[in-house]
Amino acid sequence: MTEVEFDPAARSYEVELSPPSLSDDLTDDLGRVTRALEQNHDRTCRSVDVDVARTISPDLRSWDWCARATLYEEELIALSPPSGLQLALAVDLGTTKIAGYLVDMERGKTLAADGVMNPQTAYGEDIVTRISYARKSTEHAARLREDVVDALNRLAHKLCQKTDTDRLHIVDMVLVGNTAMHHLFLGLPTEQLVRSPYVPAVSRAMVVKTRDAGLELAPGAYVRTLPNVAGYVGADHVAMLLATDLQGGPAPALALDIGTNTEICLSADGKLTSVSCASGPAFEGAHIEHGMRAASGAIERLDLMDGDVTYRTVDGAPPVGLCGSGILDAVAGLYSADIVDIRGAMDRSHKRVRVTNGRPEFVLVEAGEAGNQRAITVTQRDVREVLLAKGAIRAGIEVLLRAQGLRAEELERVVIAGAFGCYISVSSAVKIGLLPDLPLGRFKPVGNAAGAGARLAMLSQDKWADAQQMARRIEYIEPATVPDFDRIMARASYLGEGPSSAE
Amino acid sequence: MTEVEFDPAARSYEVELSPPSLSDDLTDDLGRVTRALEQNHDRTCRSVDVDVARTISPDLRSWDWCARATLYEEELIALSPPSGLQLALAVDLGTTKIAGYLVDMERGKTLAADGVMNPQTAYGEDIVTRISYARKSTEHAARLREDVVDALNRLAHKLCQKTDTDRLHIVDMVLVGNTAMHHLFLGLPTEQLVRSPYVPAVSRAMVVKTRDAGLELAPGAYVRTLPNVAGYVGADHVAMLLATDLQGGPAPALALDIGTNTEICLSADGKLTSVSCASGPAFEGAHIEHGMRAASGAIERLDLMDGDVTYRTVDGAPPVGLCGSGILDAVAGLYSADIVDIRGAMDRSHKRVRVTNGRPEFVLVEAGEAGNQRAITVTQRDVREVLLAKGAIRAGIEVLLRAQGLRAEELERVVIAGAFGCYISVSSAVKIGLLPDLPLGRFKPVGNAAGAGARLAMLSQDKWADAQQMARRIEYIEPATVPDFDRIMARASYLGEGPSSAE
Repeated sequence: MTEVEFDPAARSYEVELSPPSLSDDLTDDLGRVTRALEQNHDRTCRSVDVDVARTISPDLRSWDWCARATLYEEELIALSPPSGLQLALAVDLGTTKIAGYLVDMERGKTLAADGVMNPQTAYGEDIVTRISYARKSTEHAARLREDVVDALNRLAHKLCQKTDTDRLHIVDMVLVGNTAMHHLFLGLPTEQLVRSPYVPAVSRAMVVKTRDAGLELAPGAYVRTLPNVAGYVGADHVAMLLATDLQGGPAPALALDIGTNTEICLSADGKLTSVSCASGPAFEGAHIEHGMRAASGAIERLDLMDGDVTYRTVDGAPPVGLCGSGILDAVAGLYSADIVDIRGAMDRSHKRVRVTNGRPEFVLVEAGEAGNQRAITVTQRDVREVLLAKGAIRAGIEVLLRAQGLRAEELERVVIAGAFGCYISVSSAVKIGLLPDLPLGRFKPVGNAAGAGARLAMLSQDKWADAQQMARRIEYIEPATVPDFDRIMARASYLGEGPSSAE
Repeated sequence: MTEVEFDPAARSYEVELSPPSLSDDLTDDLGRVTRALEQNHDRTCRSVDVDVARTISPDLRSWDWCARATLYEEELIALSPPSGLQLALAVDLGTTKIAGYLVDMERGKTLAADGVMNPQTAYGEDIVTRISYARKSTEHAARLREDVVDALNRLAHKLCQKTDTDRLHIVDMVLVGNTAMHHLFLGLPTEQLVRSPYVPAVSRAMVVKTRDAGLELAPGAYVRTLPNVAGYVGADHVAMLLATDLQGGPAPALALDIGTNTEICLSADGKLTSVSCASGPAFEGAHIEHGMRAASGAIERLDLMDGDVTYRTVDGAPPVGLCGSGILDAVAGLYSADIVDIRGAMDRSHKRVRVTNGRPEFVLVEAGEAGNQRAITVTQRDVREVLLAKGAIRAGIEVLLRAQGLRAEELERVVIAGAFGCYISVSSAVKIGLLPDLPLGRFKPVGNAAGAGARLAMLSQDKWADAQQMARRIEYIEPATVPDFDRIMARASYLGEGPSSAE
């Protein structure tokens, strides 16, 4: 992914001050700090966060007139002892998972990365259900917001514990997420997101005091959100494009961020067009009988050879379930071996297929071999979940290609991002027709590009500015306005097929 | 006082928007507002207050896509129905009294003015006592702050009730006060204000969200404070200079703001020098036996002719006590009639002097004539209170004159401000030696100039900028560093005398 020069908006400086004296220097305490910033670091300070001002006098005296002063642009947002490490937090707020990156703001190094589940899943796995819940009352809406804010505070705490640091030293935070997650986190209105014409309350980048968002970081810190593009194309999409450097060069290139919603961007001829598809949580391991997140024991790679199953698990631990990439491999394997057909129907006569309560399932791992002594299977329903996701994503790709009058074969690069925690197998994705059939060298899986984009925007003022610019350039295509969309969708919803090939 | 062009930092615009449409305009709700501001009013909006964003979508829909948008500089800080009146509040936060002015932000007209007592007086009449109280614990400090914030919220409510308006439509607030009041209100540290070398935590102007100050005005509004100059020369002093246009012309001019602390500024040869004196609350009617604020029935003017007393009361109501200007007249009258001597000792043999519990007092109004059937007197202690105040103020004037090598006679203008609620008699002030003996035409009493200055800074961006500049230019003189200060003070502490004349 893109490398970047370390030039963050929030920057710390060590200041050594002389104490005030009745006879020759009665400058106020803040004035001493701003004078040192000006004289010794050539930085102008035009304002101070009121919470920083509220402790400045006893702080400076107890630190014997030495401190680290942090400026965000021209505002003094933090003051800490000279030895204090200044930190920043980049977050990808996913519908299902929240990924956080703790960064050392002196060198720009990532000190730790970690994730927590999005506790809003308790109120609905998908965005629409959550927004319906929030709509019931202001208390409901507040609960959704508080839950995610709590999770972010816990995530910050966890990252700081891991690195033996203090979350009160986190002086900057950049957060990305889809538009709904972004709005629910900031407490912005969401009802208009689920009613036609599905517009965001706010698209532009927001710079909000963490205290106004309920976050418990450095008292004067800001949380910054990248811009949204449309109701279903959010800041995470912009972050992904930032990280994958898909900024509209001449060569046709595609970038996908696969998640509960999958956003896809086509860059060609200097134009950026984006679309969003409701792909469901299958690739995050949800709605799948033995699905799980990419934790220890999750099957992340799987191969079906002559009916034999070989696999690899996270940490090499005994298998306990399937994460997104494992599910994809399993369905691709079953399809290649003709154990499921293009509609996802399972061959009940296969020796490894068993029927439980009338429902067929393919046994991947026998109970005796599994880490928790329970067989790991792929059910026919699992296959259908994957089929739905596959159809939605492939139809989205087709909508973009048609809008620019391109054929899939003309794509020179396909970047595949997603917060799976592990990389999907491109060949499996091509096999089931989720991705177009191109030479494998043109595909580039990149992991959590949204999180990486958030980190870039935090580390570089240029990247932060690029993100705003890019968001304004992206043309959003609303599938409902595409002629023939239903037909495109229907044709994409077979295993192994893309809409073009079905033409 | 100075007139000013209406050009406020917070300004409202009516916007008429077209609703979003799936087929041709999917701009976000905020984007619609900023586009209209740009296209129809030539105003750029770069950010939005998060609380405004939190209701923007249902608001715009319920107002049928018409609204009043208020920008503070380039931030959208309020959105209200198109018919809504936008208001602003200017406040002079005095140690004893709080004066507020409610202004219509469409035309800059003052709609109402009112005052409330500063509830912090319950914890001490003077600043030092209050700060000692605040120092005891963070709860004590919080209580002082909450009390004054409550009073400000009540004052806003009162002004809005008077004018049948809504305090949630107050989109801007400018507050001035002495440094201690300023710090206590914003929750800034105060301990260093009462310990040598008495420096402010913050001198520069502050722009703070009202929610961060505990105020309940428009959710996105700012409260702005003018800059402080020193620990005992605050934003109210800067506001007074702004209102009296004492900005350092060549002709020697003096401006005094008489209150519990009296700040004095000498402008001469393009230089501004200021000093502060602890004059006590006598001129606010406190520490005076029958003192009261300038409410109905307060004696505001008084004359002692051949032992007879004539007077004028506020509202012409039957007399119930003395406000600051009345006390001053009484002491001047007693001194002129030789009933008190230069040290403030009262002639016990005078027919109107009675001795109660060994303490002499002069009867101004007999019980039968008084509004509350209680005699109104001036006690010898009252005279001594006035003497202390007079001495402190006159010594301050002398310190400034000496610092610039001027004699009192050279002063071409003397502006007298003070939140007395009524104007003091200049001739009385000259008689007792509070002010130097100059032709009466050179004196200009102006009432509450600090409040007027706050209003100017609110109505005019230029005046707001002038205030910052002026504050940086003012040279503060710390009396403790003036050689001979004790002698100057001692000589000023006689009735009828100034230090120069005693030389």
